[in-house]
Amino acid sequence: MNVRIENMDWMTYRDRVGNGECKVAIPVGAIEQHGPHMSLNPDVLIPQHIACQVAEKTGGMLVAPPIAYGYKSQVKSGGGNFFPGTTCVSSRALEEYVYDVILAFVEHGSREFILINGHFENSMCLVEAADRAVKHAQLSGVEIKVILLSYWDFISEATIEMVFPDGFSGWAVEHGGVLETSIMLKIHPELVDMSRAIDTPPAEFPPYDVFPPNPDWVPDSGTLSSPTKATAEKGKWILDECIAKMSETFR
Amino acid sequence: MNVRIENMDWMTYRDRVGNGECKVAIPVGAIEQHGPHMSLNPDVLIPQHIACQVAEKTGGMLVAPPIAYGYKSQVKSGGGNFFPGTTCVSSRALEEYVYDVILAFVEHGSREFILINGHFENSMCLVEAADRAVKHAQLSGVEIKVILLSYWDFISEATIEMVFPDGFSGWAVEHGGVLETSIMLKIHPELVDMSRAIDTPPAEFPPYDVFPPNPDWVPDSGTLSSPTKATAEKGKWILDECIAKMSETFR
Amino acid sequence: MNVRIENMDWMTYRDRVGNGECKVAIPVGAIEQHGPHMSLNPDVLIPQHIACQVAEKTGGMLVAPPIAYGYKSQVKSGGGNFFPGTTCVSSRALEEYVYDVILAFVEHGSREFILINGHFENSMCLVEAADRAVKHAQLSGVEIKVILLSYWDFISEATIEMVFPDGFSGWAVEHGGVLETSIMLKIHPELVDMSRAIDTPPAEFPPYDVFPPNPDWVPDSGTLSSPTKATAEKGKWILDECIAKMSETFR
Amino acid sequence: MNVRIENMDWMTYRDRVGNGECKVAIPVGAIEQHGPHMSLNPDVLIPQHIACQVAEKTGGMLVAPPIAYGYKSQVKSGGGNFFPGTTCVSSRALEEYVYDVILAFVEHGSREFILINGHFENSMCLVEAADRAVKHAQLSGVEIKVILLSYWDFISEATIEMVFPDGFSGWAVEHGGVLETSIMLKIHPELVDMSRAIDTPPAEFPPYDVFPPNPDWVPDSGTLSSPTKATAEKGKWILDECIAKMSETFR
Amino acid sequence: MNVRIENMDWMTYRDRVGNGECKVAIPVGAIEQHGPHMSLNPDVLIPQHIACQVAEKTGGMLVAPPIAYGYKSQVKSGGGNFFPGTTCVSSRALEEYVYDVILAFVEHGSREFILINGHFENSMCLVEAADRAVKHAQLSGVEIKVILLSYWDFISEATIEMVFPDGFSGWAVEHGGVLETSIMLKIHPELVDMSRAIDTPPAEFPPYDVFPPNPDWVPDSGTLSSPTKATAEKGKWILDECIAKMSETFR
Amino acid sequence: MNVRIENMDWMTYRDRVGNGECKVAIPVGAIEQHGPHMSLNPDVLIPQHIACQVAEKTGGMLVAPPIAYGYKSQVKSGGGNFFPGTTCVSSRALEEYVYDVILAFVEHGSREFILINGHFENSMCLVEAADRAVKHAQLSGVEIKVILLSYWDFISEATIEMVFPDGFSGWAVEHGGVLETSIMLKIHPELVDMSRAIDTPPAEFPPYDVFPPNPDWVPDSGTLSSPTKATAEKGKWILDECIAKMSETFR
Repeated sequence: MNVRIENMDWMTYRDRVGNGECKVAIPVGAIEQHGPHMSLNPDVLIPQHIACQVAEKTGGMLVAPPIAYGYKSQVKSGGGNFFPGTTCVSSRALEEYVYDVILAFVEHGSREFILINGHFENSMCLVEAADRAVKHAQLSGVEIKVILLSYWDFISEATIEMVFPDGFSGWAVEHGGVLETSIMLKIHPELVDMSRAIDTPPAEFPPYDVFPPNPDWVPDSGTLSSPTKATAEKGKWILDECIAKMSETFR
Repeated sequence: MNVRIENMDWMTYRDRVGNGECKVAIPVGAIEQHGPHMSLNPDVLIPQHIACQVAEKTGGMLVAPPIAYGYKSQVKSGGGNFFPGTTCVSSRALEEYVYDVILAFVEHGSREFILINGHFENSMCLVEAADRAVKHAQLSGVEIKVILLSYWDFISEATIEMVFPDGFSGWAVEHGGVLETSIMLKIHPELVDMSRAIDTPPAEFPPYDVFPPNPDWVPDSGTLSSPTKATAEKGKWILDECIAKMSETFR
Repeated sequence: MNVRIENMDWMTYRDRVGNGECKVAIPVGAIEQHGPHMSLNPDVLIPQHIACQVAEKTGGMLVAPPIAYGYKSQVKSGGGNFFPGTTCVSSRALEEYVYDVILAFVEHGSREFILINGHFENSMCLVEAADRAVKHAQLSGVEIKVILLSYWDFISEATIEMVFPDGFSGWAVEHGGVLETSIMLKIHPELVDMSRAIDTPPAEFPPYDVFPPNPDWVPDSGTLSSPTKATAEKGKWILDECIAKMSETFR
Repeated sequence: MNVRIENMDWMTYRDRVGNGECKVAIPVGAIEQHGPHMSLNPDVLIPQHIACQVAEKTGGMLVAPPIAYGYKSQVKSGGGNFFPGTTCVSSRALEEYVYDVILAFVEHGSREFILINGHFENSMCLVEAADRAVKHAQLSGVEIKVILLSYWDFISEATIEMVFPDGFSGWAVEHGGVLETSIMLKIHPELVDMSRAIDTPPAEFPPYDVFPPNPDWVPDSGTLSSPTKATAEKGKWILDECIAKMSETFR
Repeated sequence: MNVRIENMDWMTYRDRVGNGECKVAIPVGAIEQHGPHMSLNPDVLIPQHIACQVAEKTGGMLVAPPIAYGYKSQVKSGGGNFFPGTTCVSSRALEEYVYDVILAFVEHGSREFILINGHFENSMCLVEAADRAVKHAQLSGVEIKVILLSYWDFISEATIEMVFPDGFSGWAVEHGGVLETSIMLKIHPELVDMSRAIDTPPAEFPPYDVFPPNPDWVPDSGTLSSPTKATAEKGKWILDECIAKMSETFR
Repeated sequence: MNVRIENMDWMTYRDRVGNGECKVAIPVGAIEQHGPHMSLNPDVLIPQHIACQVAEKTGGMLVAPPIAYGYKSQVKSGGGNFFPGTTCVSSRALEEYVYDVILAFVEHGSREFILINGHFENSMCLVEAADRAVKHAQLSGVEIKVILLSYWDFISEATIEMVFPDGFSGWAVEHGGVLETSIMLKIHPELVDMSRAIDTPPAEFPPYDVFPPNPDWVPDSGTLSSPTKATAEKGKWILDECIAKMSETFR
């Protein structure tokens, strides 16, 4: 609990970041449908959980309040922006918001930031926000470093094989499927109701996107593959690996 | 718990908002110092708490994930943007973000929104976001209504007299003072440490602002008046009144 | 007259500001209805008048051409943006315009600016413009100082008691009422026609705003309180106090 | 006097524009050096004067408060943006400001607007503002028409020959020269001091621009040709022609 | 040749698109280093070539002038934005430019657009541009459809096996490698000099990005894998497949 | 051929620009109708051709890929934005795009840029882009110089007399007329079909613009004067002069 910035009083926080050597992790997620068996916030809660665990393990790192609303869900990665509950913002809004948040933390003394992304579609907005923040800080003579990661990039093939013993359908369709559901079962079981999980074959898409999106491309459930084989144990394997690797990397 | 949108699955949410008659309350706050005795997030947690209570009482209302980072803290209302921990964004970023969030909810079918503000400085950004969202929706033939309120405007003089039996120093200096501290003692006592509360006379300011701000204008503690007489009971009086009046108004 | 920048030739102006010690006051107003008894420009003319008087009294200060179109009128402070004649701009436009104007004057050598606001709704746009201008100047190694004030904040309670011998209905409803009308009677009697002043009780509003605004909330005349007791003498009292205090402060 | 919108009360204004058939002229100028013999505001005062005269002659037209700060002065048309007193804004700021002002007047009922430009460099910003305003109004089902003119385009060759009996050096160098000075002598003699007028040969420029601008390209006085032969009578000839032609055109 | 819009006169073009049934393909690329053996423009020339071929095969499709400057090159997909010759723009600039171009073509009558992307990093900017263009057109009552594709997504595994008989190192490192080089050898052999191709093992990257980027992560040559086994024949295989599949899809 | 940046590999380019003394010419054009006898891209091809010739003559200069889509065509200079084939962008998009491109080249080491404009309407967008780029570079301690020119400003009166032996109708109507057509006949005869050239008298316009534009103001052919007397020889005269003068100026 003592790594979450928002829960500290300002003097305590100041004493933690004042020397400039404390890293700040900023979880960035989305409010997005993840099937009828799961809440709308896995993309927020998972990176926040990982960030807190990594911060506790490494020391020298604090966790900022997550940025909850992310960039527009796309059909082939998140089911599409037309689902009720999928509540997303434009690239401009997200980019400006993240850019401002990074630079606000720079003012407090921190020089190294880790954007922990939980929503694929955020990626390029975060690239631009990070790039602009680094360059703006340089204009005022301050060198900062921004790490940008999506937690799933830390999962090894070995873990994938354990989690998907019957074969992995590929990252592209891991939206609301075994991976995210397992993690949520581990960290927020109260937000998952496996009795509502719908068994759906992996979605197949043409090699292009279309605007306005075509809802017929997406399974009715909103997940791009079946979550039915998700378990909390699988979630633990995934988290353990991500948290261990990140902790090692950012120590 | 069942009024928070982010905790619902999308089908449940869809069934609640699909007919367009469900109101959506959006708490908007700030990460801002509130003295050495309190966490950085009262401006987020208080409007979120009130929103949830009102939604439960009234029915027909859901609560969106709060927008955590708000507009830049000003010296005479929030101590100033130079305090460590005060982590704020530009008016453009906040306005765009809120504007996009409102319009995203419009897509789901809701037509009435209540922006519940917990940070004075957000006010004009929310005015602009609401005004633009209403007009943009009109361009596509959709009439929406956006209510904008700051929770403290629902507190009566009678309650003020009860909370401040020795006299009220005025709204202008109620930053991190008895009012906010009492509410936090009631709803999040774990985020308040009254042993660190600093007794400070009400701040006095010249009749203008200056940029860059002058830190000497602000008490060292960051609060603009003394929180030492805050109690959870006072917090309950305030909340009871706000929640009751809003529930009556928005039912 | 010799304090208004626009009326000088450039060499005279250069000789006044070239050493960087001359303050520049920038009046910012609005074109906004103020009842059927008064022109649309009190929010422009009053701060411009005050600025000129202060500049003449203090020396070392010049007055820029006023920024005439201000931020959107709000129901509870200016009657609302739907009145014919109320001609307002977005926060983005006002902010950018003021920001650019400040930085243009910085190029001429001045380092201290006083934004003299005559329209409540402009406030936060001016905060953002001032904050950004200060920071942008810093990037190029120039330290500037921007004072932001609304002239009414210099009026004392003693003066209020003199101006409102029967009791003051509060700042919130002082739109087009005794205060502004009295000042205009003093400085621009040709723009006031007291025979058209409408006696209206102080407006009462709910503790929230709504978008789109509800015209029924506002008295038909557009003023939020009655201007019928306005006199030029009262205007003089107010102006004398504001001008004296500002002159003292900014000398 | 009774054509200036800012001097009307809102009910009078409403009665003038409410049927949508009243044209609104919006003068757009600049605060820009015009030599040591003249004030900084000819680009504001001249189009405002012309607008008022045309409005009085034609009826069915009102004049908006001028937009005083214009787009950055360029070396070959206005001497350059580096002169003290030349106080200009970015294209974005001007465009947004004018765009918003037009659309605000649309709300009052007017459907035809005349942007009367007094500063060459404003031209393309006004094109973009007008084009965007027309298209935005169309989105809400409102057809508006925006006329854009620079007053000097109404001056005939015959008048040029009268004003420049010794030969015309060309429009390109008519900044602060005989033309503008003569008009100002006619309408605001108190803002011209011919004893300070500097006799300078017409400026000659290479066939390109350079950024940052080179001050050596510009005569020390800031005018691009000599104002010494300016007279109020010449100003009257020019104004009479412009006003007559515009009145005929826009009646 | 007769499918490139820029080479037509306007009347010919009008006759082709006027009924609204002609598709418009818009190549979007980048100016970006692709190793010492190849020019800076494969990301422009390849999608333009494919677009023209598809247009010729399908009929009912024209090809717009390519958008040459794309979004900032990223280390792990394009080597990074710090290479001399890599000349990229911000997300805002690219998004606005593409958005405007689409809507300009809508004015001519076309209703279906195909953005043919040749630079991975452009992807999310094109998503946003397409999404906004579709929605803006809808506001004015026009339904348009925008297809977004990256040509490499049309390459089958079978072709990959033929092109990489010794094993495929993965899409992630196909920057300036066998794939792009082979295509360029086929369509623009004069822009490839295989004698300068550098044999480099596939690049390996950590599972995150860092800003400012670290040049040490990237092979000195700038390619992320070796281009030495590229041949024009392989280029032909790839192009034949992409062109055939797209032609079938968009006929 | 060896002056076009896009055709170089990055190492060759680096060796040319690395010492900062190599100028970079950036052609900026438009896709715009030029009559039924000519393609849509003279405004792109002409400045690109001139740039390449000047670069070859002077040495120490390279030519960037042209920016093809320019600012909205205006009735009185380009026929208007409503012609099929005229495919233009907003001032914001063009300005941001050019600004970013300049600053990207600055990163490679170049310090002097020449914007070679082929489309009159681009002018003020290029002014703003150049001005902002210069100032932004200064913030990071880099002094750059941006030359902005429209190629036709290098044509002498003597050449005009040769090209128009029967009298010159003026620059204002030289859209798609003898001048541009002659140049295109010289450099891209395959894109001109003189059998389709329409003989039209010089267009005459009122001294103002109107939005939305009135197509009746423009000759049906889209050219503002007759191209029928264009010849490749005249094109050569014009080009020879422009190229010689620019080479002399920028050597």
